[in-house]
Amino acid sequence: MKNISILGSTGSIGTQTLDVVEKNKNELNIVALSANENIDLLYQQVLKYKPQMVSVFNKDKALVLRERLKGKSNAVVMADVSGLNACATISDAEIIVTAVSGMIGIEPTLAAINAKKDIALANKETLVAAGELVMAAAKKNGVKILPVDSEHSAIFQSLGIHSTEEINKIILTASGGPFRGMNLRQLEKVTVMDALNHPNWNMGKKITVDSATLMNKGLELIEAKHLFGVSENQIEIAVHPQSIVHSAVEFVDKSTIAQLGLPDMRVPIQYALFYPTRKPNNLKSLELSDLCRLTFEKPDMKTFRCLQLALEATKEGGTMPAMMNAANEMVVQLFLDGRVKFNDIPNIIEYLMIQYSNTKLKTLEDVENARIWVNMMIEGRRGTLIAYIN
Amino acid sequence: MKNISILGSTGSIGTQTLDVVEKNKNELNIVALSANENIDLLYQQVLKYKPQMVSVFNKDKALVLRERLKGKSNAVVMADVSGLNACATISDAEIIVTAVSGMIGIEPTLAAINAKKDIALANKETLVAAGELVMAAAKKNGVKILPVDSEHSAIFQSLGIHSTEEINKIILTASGGPFRGMNLRQLEKVTVMDALNHPNWNMGKKITVDSATLMNKGLELIEAKHLFGVSENQIEIAVHPQSIVHSAVEFVDKSTIAQLGLPDMRVPIQYALFYPTRKPNNLKSLELSDLCRLTFEKPDMKTFRCLQLALEATKEGGTMPAMMNAANEMVVQLFLDGRVKFNDIPNIIEYLMIQYSNTKLKTLEDVENARIWVNMMIEGRRGTLIAYIN
Repeated sequence: MKNISILGSTGSIGTQTLDVVEKNKNELNIVALSANENIDLLYQQVLKYKPQMVSVFNKDKALVLRERLKGKSNAVVMADVSGLNACATISDAEIIVTAVSGMIGIEPTLAAINAKKDIALANKETLVAAGELVMAAAKKNGVKILPVDSEHSAIFQSLGIHSTEEINKIILTASGGPFRGMNLRQLEKVTVMDALNHPNWNMGKKITVDSATLMNKGLELIEAKHLFGVSENQIEIAVHPQSIVHSAVEFVDKSTIAQLGLPDMRVPIQYALFYPTRKPNNLKSLELSDLCRLTFEKPDMKTFRCLQLALEATKEGGTMPAMMNAANEMVVQLFLDGRVKFNDIPNIIEYLMIQYSNTKLKTLEDVENARIWVNMMIEGRRGTLIAYIN
Repeated sequence: MKNISILGSTGSIGTQTLDVVEKNKNELNIVALSANENIDLLYQQVLKYKPQMVSVFNKDKALVLRERLKGKSNAVVMADVSGLNACATISDAEIIVTAVSGMIGIEPTLAAINAKKDIALANKETLVAAGELVMAAAKKNGVKILPVDSEHSAIFQSLGIHSTEEINKIILTASGGPFRGMNLRQLEKVTVMDALNHPNWNMGKKITVDSATLMNKGLELIEAKHLFGVSENQIEIAVHPQSIVHSAVEFVDKSTIAQLGLPDMRVPIQYALFYPTRKPNNLKSLELSDLCRLTFEKPDMKTFRCLQLALEATKEGGTMPAMMNAANEMVVQLFLDGRVKFNDIPNIIEYLMIQYSNTKLKTLEDVENARIWVNMMIEGRRGTLIAYIN
């Protein structure tokens, strides 16, 4: 029996993780669940999976949940960052699924690593903003970082018995998002609804917008660099609209290993939870001959500039990726709120990258300072930025 | 330093193996070379790679070579089956590359296994005709069978850390050969020259004809069944004209791992020689985005009936695959000699399969008896068969 704690159990990855747990009841057990604020769903999850601990980031809602669970569950109900960290370090958990969205996931992930828990990593920002710190902590504590998103799981699976020194290049595939093939003028007119309409994957809002801007691929590039210890120059992006080849590794002997499958996040989730064993499931088989055609093309980095910006940020290093990531988080929220247009997203991020004085990344505080600077630029000194936007 | 003996050093796989050895002089060393009758090339190879032993199947040519090498090489020159077996069991060799063509390769391969040599297997017939015997001997002697042809190497590489019990199905890819898309009437008119014009791979004549009839894929299916311990029902053929995806494995968790690359046999050869390490080389990288398009379709087994016949032979088991393989070898030679037409190949094989009284496969003698029966049917009782053909 493997004991699992899920950070972000009500989101897309969280619910799919619970689906995998449900189908493997005899081998997987939930010891902690945490969510941002969806206490209705969390309530049902607590009754069903009977965790020892549950945490709600929103303090008021945590109190409501505590009341509702009275007499129905023995779970300790916690709140805020401390609750998230408690779920990340709970003694009975062997593996922590970090499926919270955004930079909020960094601290509990590091806490879990320091508590010697293996990590099923679904929070991109952890490696994007603090990759050096996280990978060093994982190495020091001898814990496994098992990627849960489809691309990094594909790379991890493709790597197989081979070491990262045997990698020639990583081929990170991208669906291209809903706006593939459009030019800048066409992108001027796209709406939030358009951006949330992803062709292949059903995901949270923030990551869906990131897919439309290709920032998601930029973040994944930075993540892959840290996770597999390669240079950004060794990572090639291939736009592959069918989303069947989830990524590939070309080794130094010029043999390429790729991972393929129908788009279903339960495959990488299950792989991370049962690694290194592959467990049977009732998901759909890939029928290559029915699919007929797989296409690949180079990304249009001039139109989808977020990808280029992410590449530049990781080349600069230091806290630049953390800053860029924070900027993207906030600007995407502005876009979702209808306050800026789609094409403003790369423009504002680029503006902030030019304004930012890069610093060394030594502690989590440096990441937090980068975030505070972005917040100040966007919200505090609104005049400056709003002037730029309009 | 790894000591290598090559059975079939003057053929396509043999010469490419020597190319890999040449590029890795500090790690690979040749201790024995053997060839069928191309003593001109073998002579040069002996001078260059300085083996301890060399063997020529053709006895007269062995004598000629012995004369030519006098004073120029200390290599022992042998001949015939005994020479082949001596090269297969030479004490200094750690790995034997079995690159001879046809059923003649079975005996030395088994001898090498019993001498506890690892096998870099490029001789299809060994597993097709005597798969049960060979795999049992390999298991008993604790030796590795490292596949050298592109498809089985792809499957082997895709398997990675996982056991064969974790396989859901194997996707064996096929280029479809030069006659893909043709109907039976069009095939009536094809010539030996047409059949030898393979779109993607430059190989020996016999295997090139087998590619055109799809018998090659049938033999590979049987080979894969033995090598990876799966049922023939777990093997799916996907026609993939670009020959970039060399084969794939779908695991029980519905994750598919594929091996890709530009068609170059030196990749699987090198992988087998250095397994489990991947060594850098100067071969060409795969540029997926430049390739643009990979297509897959189901094979036309009604037109290319050899594939269907191979599937039926392996379902029947016993010595039926050995008989079918022997029949194919002889009938392909009849085709190359201009004595039968392309469409006669499956017709004659099917006729022989109907006539054949299947027997159990217990020893190599059973395989030999199947071959003798085919020989008798084709050459001895020529009247019967020629009557059938014409």
